[in-house]
Amino acid sequence: MENSRDARFAAIAATLGYSFEGEIQKGGNYTSTVQHGDQVYVSGQIPRVGSTVVVTGRVGAEVSLVQAQLAAKVCVMRALALLRQSLGSLERVKHILRISVYIQCAQDFTQQSEVADGASEVLYAVLGPAGVHTRTSVGVFQLPKNASVEIDLIAAAEPPAPSVQ
Amino acid sequence: MENSRDARFAAIAATLGYSFEGEIQKGGNYTSTVQHGDQVYVSGQIPRVGSTVVVTGRVGAEVSLVQAQLAAKVCVMRALALLRQSLGSLERVKHILRISVYIQCAQDFTQQSEVADGASEVLYAVLGPAGVHTRTSVGVFQLPKNASVEIDLIAAAEPPAPSVQ
Amino acid sequence: MENSRDARFAAIAATLGYSFEGEIQKGGNYTSTVQHGDQVYVSGQIPRVGSTVVVTGRVGAEVSLVQAQLAAKVCVMRALALLRQSLGSLERVKHILRISVYIQCAQDFTQQSEVADGASEVLYAVLGPAGVHTRTSVGVFQLPKNASVEIDLIAAAEPPAPSVQ
Repeated sequence: MENSRDARFAAIAATLGYSFEGEIQKGGNYTSTVQHGDQVYVSGQIPRVGSTVVVTGRVGAEVSLVQAQLAAKVCVMRALALLRQSLGSLERVKHILRISVYIQCAQDFTQQSEVADGASEVLYAVLGPAGVHTRTSVGVFQLPKNASVEIDLIAAAEPPAPSVQ
Repeated sequence: MENSRDARFAAIAATLGYSFEGEIQKGGNYTSTVQHGDQVYVSGQIPRVGSTVVVTGRVGAEVSLVQAQLAAKVCVMRALALLRQSLGSLERVKHILRISVYIQCAQDFTQQSEVADGASEVLYAVLGPAGVHTRTSVGVFQLPKNASVEIDLIAAAEPPAPSVQ
Repeated sequence: MENSRDARFAAIAATLGYSFEGEIQKGGNYTSTVQHGDQVYVSGQIPRVGSTVVVTGRVGAEVSLVQAQLAAKVCVMRALALLRQSLGSLERVKHILRISVYIQCAQDFTQQSEVADGASEVLYAVLGPAGVHTRTSVGVFQLPKNASVEIDLIAAAEPPAPSVQ
């Protein structure tokens, strides 16, 4: 069972104790994923599970490095859930090209890369070599809903199958 | 008249009371748009009209949410003006793939998504379904020229026509 | 000698007084460059030379504009070194599509664009017209290892040659 990406995704979700099932696509004027050719853009994800942001506050002040790494894992699990929902299966991901990791941090907190390691670890655990990505980690002043971390992503994927009419 | 994207762009510009005509391409070592294949990258835009940045200061302190949403609208109108200038017409935009919305905010301001809604609304109003994009919204510490908001964009577009010699 | 991009890169490195030789690829769950088709993503680079971050601290406070511009030059030289390492030669770069410039700054520092000019100048000096890029410059609260500047990049390049077996 651990041989498929979707199974590894489920195993990590179980370990974290969170469910990423259900409809998490945003409607309206923007959306969670846009596929163009073989590239998929995923909107910035905060560590929300259902209607709760599970890690909030300033990293290096009231939020520890370990809590921030958990936040990064939840953000990237959400991004993977959206990719799976968009593509049908994580097997159709060819490569993760780029993640941007934004961390709400204290003025003197300089371990942004260590926070991002939480996300990188999950991508590799689920996708293997296809999950080895480029990344950028920066410390920002605030994030939506007081989230501690926000992550967006660009993936290469199998292009959509032509529709049969 | 409201049936074309360029006309809808003009109508929104009139409603905002700003003109986005004229040369706003930057020269020199960098530029406002680069097209590669069918992707167009647009440089980060601040809410500048002519030589004036029309919304400056920290959102959640001296700048209100409504003023910040206006700033986001002006930023994205500038991005659309640049796309139109680069492509000849907004009819040649196939899809908006990604916007990144940077907001100069107060320490406890957490409505970055609500600010970005101003930009998303304009993209949908002008482009319809082709304007439905992914986005990332973060709160930063400062922006060029004390701008309240900065937005960059990636679009899919018709590839350039081969030149006839 | 100044006629090739690789030679111009070496000349600028000598002028800066830094060496960008040697293995600067990161191993592990993420990497410094990912090529997909004819696009190359480069991870966020701080102004590190060997194991030393050569410009640290807050721009507009203990770090001057000139020092920050030097930081931006070092960041982008690292990005070019990674592109060269990935592609074999900078001659294979077709175009720089986008740079994002993150500046750790003081609350009232608004010359982010002027800092980014350091990076833009190097890209043009090395690559000529192929180095004319779009860019986004923002002021952030902190950066990894207290770096003053971080820059990431997307380039268009010749696709990898098919391997002969």
